Amino acid sequence: MNVRSLPRPGGRSARVQAAVHQATRELLDQRGRAALTVPLIAARAGVTPSTVYRRWGDLNELLADVALEQLRPETPPADTGSVEGDLQAWAEQYFEEMSSVGMAMVQDVLSARMGSETAPGCACAGITAGQIAAIVERGIARGQAVPSVEAVMDGVVAPVVYRLLFGPAPATPGLVRAWVAACMARATVQPPAQATPAQPAEA
Amino acid sequence: MNVRSLPRPGGRSARVQAAVHQATRELLDQRGRAALTVPLIAARAGVTPSTVYRRWGDLNELLADVALEQLRPETPPADTGSVEGDLQAWAEQYFEEMSSVGMAMVQDVLSARMGSETAPGCACAGITAGQIAAIVERGIARGQAVPSVEAVMDGVVAPVVYRLLFGPAPATPGLVRAWVAACMARATVQPPAQATPAQPAEA
Repeated sequence: MNVRSLPRPGGRSARVQAAVHQATRELLDQRGRAALTVPLIAARAGVTPSTVYRRWGDLNELLADVALEQLRPETPPADTGSVEGDLQAWAEQYFEEMSSVGMAMVQDVLSARMGSETAPGCACAGITAGQIAAIVERGIARGQAVPSVEAVMDGVVAPVVYRLLFGPAPATPGLVRAWVAACMARATVQPPAQATPAQPAEA
Repeated sequence: MNVRSLPRPGGRSARVQAAVHQATRELLDQRGRAALTVPLIAARAGVTPSTVYRRWGDLNELLADVALEQLRPETPPADTGSVEGDLQAWAEQYFEEMSSVGMAMVQDVLSARMGSETAPGCACAGITAGQIAAIVERGIARGQAVPSVEAVMDGVVAPVVYRLLFGPAPATPGLVRAWVAACMARATVQPPAQATPAQPAEA
């Protein structure tokens, strides 16, 4: 994604984004992805198609932006009092989300990225890393042993997404629990100075 | 991918596939992906566009098929005498391939899959799993402790591909070595009866 999808809050820009996002979500529910076009979305949102093209570039970018908006969490990860408890609760929810609406989102985001020249790095991964970073920072503040954010991304997030994209079979709750436990087995106590910073744009 | 991409060896079907694959590879080298069209490839291969559409469906499927052909290994994984040695040698090579031509392949395959209704599961993952299964079976035959094929897919292949697709940064040789070592730390001796079968179509 890109800055066009991050307008300043308030003002016409934010109103247009809200209207276009809502129109997209409603049309997705009512007609499905195959029927969606930029003119159809623009008409429902009460803007011109050129407004949509100017901000989002194309339908893939818009769908990816809407999907990311839905992925963006409204609340910090649940606080269970322990890092492993927090990670297990978060991972269970992440796995459920990815298993349901998640794949359409991942594919929208990848489609948008495939067409773009953006450097490696993806807002969806940033959002996920931000959630993990919040759990890790909470654990560091409690003086508890924590895995690195990267270890959780590599050890838990990557296989969940890889299996959804490539198979042979989706992950299971039991596998996800085992992956989190394996990360915790390599957890270490970190001085606060070494806290892994959350992704600024996402956390 | 689908059965259309796996013609019986010999005969016109195989000759057409070889000609179309070669034409596609040559045009990719000479003109790049953006310039490729099915009529252009068909003309160079000396077949009609409808022949290409009939077998491959569309350009994405053809590009994915060609990419998979390049991914398909000509030799079994190197035999270093130990499972960890074999896995480390294989993982290093896999990481190098994916870091270079791999991403275009992954994106071709995903683009083809996004448009298709195929069930989860992907020929590229099957090829990779087949290579790992060959190493695991060799280790079992030697009476050595082995990880499961799934453990290597989840622990090594998934983070390599996830990082290439989503960032924030590609894996490193050091990370890949550590991921293989982590799989080996959970390796167990298996009776031959429990050998993980290689993917029939690929291994």
